[in-house]
Amino acid sequence: MNFGIIRYLLGRILMILSGLMVPSVVVGIIYREPFQVLKGFLITMALCLALGFLLSRNKPNKDDFYAREGLMLVVLAWLMISLIGSLPYIFSGKVSSFIDALFESTSGFTTTGATVLAIEENVLPHSLLFWRSFSLVIGGMGFLFFIISLQPAIGPRGIFIMRAELPGPSFGKLESRISKSIHILYAIYIGLIFAVIILLRIGKVDWFEAILLAFGTASTGGFDIVPQSIAAYDSQFVHMVIAVAMMIFGMSFNLIYLLVIGKFKQFFKSEELRWYLGIIISAVLLISASVFPLYTNIKTMFQDVFFTTTSIITSTAYTTVDIQKWPIFAHIVLLFLMFCGGMSGSTSSGLKVARIMMFGKSIKQELRRMISPERAVPIVIEGKPVDAINQRSTTFYIITYLAVFLVLLALISIDTQDFTSSFNAVIATLNNVGHGSDLLGPSLPYSQLSVPTKLILCLAMIMGRLEIYPVLLLFFPATWRKT
Amino acid sequence: MNFGIIRYLLGRILMILSGLMVPSVVVGIIYREPFQVLKGFLITMALCLALGFLLSRNKPNKDDFYAREGLMLVVLAWLMISLIGSLPYIFSGKVSSFIDALFESTSGFTTTGATVLAIEENVLPHSLLFWRSFSLVIGGMGFLFFIISLQPAIGPRGIFIMRAELPGPSFGKLESRISKSIHILYAIYIGLIFAVIILLRIGKVDWFEAILLAFGTASTGGFDIVPQSIAAYDSQFVHMVIAVAMMIFGMSFNLIYLLVIGKFKQFFKSEELRWYLGIIISAVLLISASVFPLYTNIKTMFQDVFFTTTSIITSTAYTTVDIQKWPIFAHIVLLFLMFCGGMSGSTSSGLKVARIMMFGKSIKQELRRMISPERAVPIVIEGKPVDAINQRSTTFYIITYLAVFLVLLALISIDTQDFTSSFNAVIATLNNVGHGSDLLGPSLPYSQLSVPTKLILCLAMIMGRLEIYPVLLLFFPATWRKT
Repeated sequence: MNFGIIRYLLGRILMILSGLMVPSVVVGIIYREPFQVLKGFLITMALCLALGFLLSRNKPNKDDFYAREGLMLVVLAWLMISLIGSLPYIFSGKVSSFIDALFESTSGFTTTGATVLAIEENVLPHSLLFWRSFSLVIGGMGFLFFIISLQPAIGPRGIFIMRAELPGPSFGKLESRISKSIHILYAIYIGLIFAVIILLRIGKVDWFEAILLAFGTASTGGFDIVPQSIAAYDSQFVHMVIAVAMMIFGMSFNLIYLLVIGKFKQFFKSEELRWYLGIIISAVLLISASVFPLYTNIKTMFQDVFFTTTSIITSTAYTTVDIQKWPIFAHIVLLFLMFCGGMSGSTSSGLKVARIMMFGKSIKQELRRMISPERAVPIVIEGKPVDAINQRSTTFYIITYLAVFLVLLALISIDTQDFTSSFNAVIATLNNVGHGSDLLGPSLPYSQLSVPTKLILCLAMIMGRLEIYPVLLLFFPATWRKT
Repeated sequence: MNFGIIRYLLGRILMILSGLMVPSVVVGIIYREPFQVLKGFLITMALCLALGFLLSRNKPNKDDFYAREGLMLVVLAWLMISLIGSLPYIFSGKVSSFIDALFESTSGFTTTGATVLAIEENVLPHSLLFWRSFSLVIGGMGFLFFIISLQPAIGPRGIFIMRAELPGPSFGKLESRISKSIHILYAIYIGLIFAVIILLRIGKVDWFEAILLAFGTASTGGFDIVPQSIAAYDSQFVHMVIAVAMMIFGMSFNLIYLLVIGKFKQFFKSEELRWYLGIIISAVLLISASVFPLYTNIKTMFQDVFFTTTSIITSTAYTTVDIQKWPIFAHIVLLFLMFCGGMSGSTSSGLKVARIMMFGKSIKQELRRMISPERAVPIVIEGKPVDAINQRSTTFYIITYLAVFLVLLALISIDTQDFTSSFNAVIATLNNVGHGSDLLGPSLPYSQLSVPTKLILCLAMIMGRLEIYPVLLLFFPATWRKT
């Protein structure tokens, strides 16, 4: 393990993080917030710069940078930015408990959108609200991903960071053109955020709220600004803008790129996209059949169901309707969507459509193998045959995910003493869904959980964002062994 | 597909099934039951003989018998015996609803032990109680397995039936010596049942109850005779006899054979056994830590926890204590045990320890592969390396299991409108646990479910017993295609 280069890069990340706090300070100045609040940011920024300078002063001796360094950097960076990102909440005096600030910050960078703060009481000033939602954007597009593009020294080997950080298995060609496409992908991300802001403004949403909602949508993170979530905006146009935007941000960025440059044929050729749209359509139909008796207006029903479906499959968790009133059958469909998640290479979380697709194709292969054991036919994904080792990895991931789920459930239950609360908390954090997921009935708010439980949930959010294995590697002796 | 030989074998099975009803008639005569009850058996036996004779009168033209024929025979046979086995309940007039009789019969042959009958009301006479518990024994050891041993014509190719029917992946050498060992395994099974009966008699259990309890224990099926289950017997000796017997019947029959012939060294060399015992010990310790405050007597606590652990991991579901009073943490450990199940090649259900073991070993391999992608090291099980295709199949099975679980959950929830009831019903039937599994809180009794829901649960029990794939094959077009 080349700790030198990891130290160096962590230092660079800290310095960039301090720069990323500037917009929040600007927001604070615009809203004429007291110096007490702005001080929180300024102290943190100074700290970042000082620490960052210390860490990155000496260039590392060796520039070895491989898979294990990439994985380690990603985990340490996510732990570090979650920790540092919590400081403005504390130094401003707006959040008194350290663990609450850490929870809020981790929830932001992992694009979870879960909160321990009571939004009814409006504790956060504009600058901190902005910082909280901006952390979604930073975490959503991949902070490290960003670093690499600024760091030509590691350039071609940045692939090892991307692999660790990019959600889902990749069957596309993104990796081969990393250095070229990275700036284009950022441009698309930022462009789409602006588009959502403008559309929300057309829908008469206040500037500040439009920006925060666009951040929540683009990162598929959520974070409600008002207690009623999106139901607070009595405009079908606003609901549909957010629903469609969530659906788009649940797609792979490579595909969005194809869409933007007008290559529709190539766009629709993607098998994962077709599965993604197929799952959304099936879910909308199944849920509609189940909630049909609750609605008098079919159009409103479809809008609510479509909104909820895209919100849950992309792990955003914005709501327009109280889904607790829906039948259990609808909840179980939503449960599946939570685990499913969006496409690989998107900002959404969960298992990813690519894995569900591979599993779906594999069942057929397995049945065929049972009746004709002598004939071995590989499955084909995006036009290419997939070998048994790749299939094995994909399926292992799904089981690891569920095993981690069970362990977290057991740990959390010691505190809550309640299955429903434990289940809701674990599913909301490990899948980076956030709130709005009281699927199995009402559960304890996060604020009432104990400190160890909140810490476990923070770890769950990071595991969900980084797809578990990088975090497990921390506890694996061979990671630390010299090569 | 060679339907001729399947027809022929189904006919033979029917004729043997009629013979297997004789002991129940004898029980009825001993207890001087009215002719009305015995008539139920006699009509069914006549029907079996007539239908069996018709089906097996003509020997099939071809004796092709391969994987697909084996799988098809197993599924059809289990559907058939569940159906025929329900007739004595109906013809005796003791169970008025056909679906209830079918549920009871399927629950028996799949070694589930779930009941729709209210045991408080004691509706069944001795002969039917005996038949119900005897169906556990028939289903537990594998009815078809039995047929093969009587059917030298198919002898060596019986391996295809065994593969379909024997629970769990096999890493042992059983298959190579099928024809020789099959009689020995039956002898051990019957011998152990007698041993349990005698031990229970020493514990002063009434003859009839001792026989039924031994059947329930040996098949790891359950079926309570009295509402309090095993708690009704106020004898630590009886509790421990049943607990240890359940633990033994959760082991592979090959291992029990090694134990019986005194090859202890070979016995303890089994990796799956060591995992099985390791899981039991870990579960006992974890649950004990959690229920500790509820007990004043440590010995009683360990006895209750050990009994519950072996009862749940083997999917027997006998109880000595009200586990609903235990903390949620203990429930989650039990939830894991339910899914885990006993060893492959035992009468228990669930995923099987062998699969959990392979998954455990695979995680380590996967982590190693992440940090050093160039080095590919296969995992080693029972001293042999396992290839990627085998690993893939094992992990697919686990995911298929969970996917089927989710689909069943959604279907059942339409009727129950209650997550807890649906979850408990699916976990109890798909894992062949039966009752006593109200882990997530109290749930609706089976008797209150609708007819379609009961039918779905019958299918779930058969899927659980036959490890899902054979049942899925029924719905797979390629199965029906000509070769």
